[in-house]
Amino acid sequence: MNYPNGKKKETGSSGMAAKTNKIFSNRGMSLEEDINTTNQYYLDTDKAIIHKKPTPVQIVKVNYPRRSAAVITEAYFKQASTTDYNGLYRNSYIDFEAKETKNKTLFPLANIHDHQIRHMEAIVKHGGISFLIIRFAVYDETFFMPAEKLFTHWYDKLNGGKKSIAYKKIKDEEYLIPFQYQARIDYLKIIDKLYF
Amino acid sequence: MNYPNGKKKETGSSGMAAKTNKIFSNRGMSLEEDINTTNQYYLDTDKAIIHKKPTPVQIVKVNYPRRSAAVITEAYFKQASTTDYNGLYRNSYIDFEAKETKNKTLFPLANIHDHQIRHMEAIVKHGGISFLIIRFAVYDETFFMPAEKLFTHWYDKLNGGKKSIAYKKIKDEEYLIPFQYQARIDYLKIIDKLYF
Repeated sequence: MNYPNGKKKETGSSGMAAKTNKIFSNRGMSLEEDINTTNQYYLDTDKAIIHKKPTPVQIVKVNYPRRSAAVITEAYFKQASTTDYNGLYRNSYIDFEAKETKNKTLFPLANIHDHQIRHMEAIVKHGGISFLIIRFAVYDETFFMPAEKLFTHWYDKLNGGKKSIAYKKIKDEEYLIPFQYQARIDYLKIIDKLYF
Repeated sequence: MNYPNGKKKETGSSGMAAKTNKIFSNRGMSLEEDINTTNQYYLDTDKAIIHKKPTPVQIVKVNYPRRSAAVITEAYFKQASTTDYNGLYRNSYIDFEAKETKNKTLFPLANIHDHQIRHMEAIVKHGGISFLIIRFAVYDETFFMPAEKLFTHWYDKLNGGKKSIAYKKIKDEEYLIPFQYQARIDYLKIIDKLYF
């Protein structure tokens, strides 16, 4: 089925097939844009309330040229201490991080920080649903990895194991998030299947 | 009981009594500082995972004097579309706004925005716990008001009713949050009582 903007539903096809469907693909939209669009759709349809947290900024200088409009003239990016997205779905607290890689064969664990793992562990312990969304940009494929699975890779690394997760392993073991017209990255579908 | 820093537990006393206890009071710390300290204590003691969302900023210009240090040289404050704090406690999604007023007799509803009410309504509808923390700075008293109660004041205002909530009404009907040394604004105590 073709949608008005010429985009097509992701059919769960392999990387190769996705390549041949290139003109219908999602290429060009960043993962963040896709997730924001998806979250807005969830919000508009009253399905879930999930937001991206604002980028943490350390504000140093602010000018007030007019009463109404403060201009920040010196500020610095701070490292986020948690994850990028959180919210509420079906009575449950939802908390996740999203990462995009241009790598063709693996996802480097250096993309995730130690304090994010600790945060996600606390979330799971207190009854929340936590996960990682990974996009392999070259294949235009986006995967859902439950936090518990991420933890095993993380501790494997800490114990001298691999510093990355192979694309093939992710493709085999994790959940491909279908690309759709409105809920572009419809991760709630995976949550419905895995947690409810 | 006196604590090492000369601060004293809030005894739930009246505004007048709080005034006479001024030297032991919390005066001087902003509500935001108190809540951040409380949240850090909850985090450190593994009681809850609740964070203040970063201030939303529209970044316009960034300079890179060195590779390592990006400096934001032009940015603007954006209005928050949700509330200031959210997180996870006892398997439940927690979401709240905190407001401080210098007014002695009332809390002006103009402190709350329409989109925040809509956000809080969605939270309650989807099974989250939402509330407003109100501090009357002159009395050094901080109250917990469940979102449902805020909604009744809000819709009363929309229907031509009062544009504010009387301090006395809040004192009579809402929940005084005890001031304590570590969990300064121990709002989880109220949540335990009201929701579990």
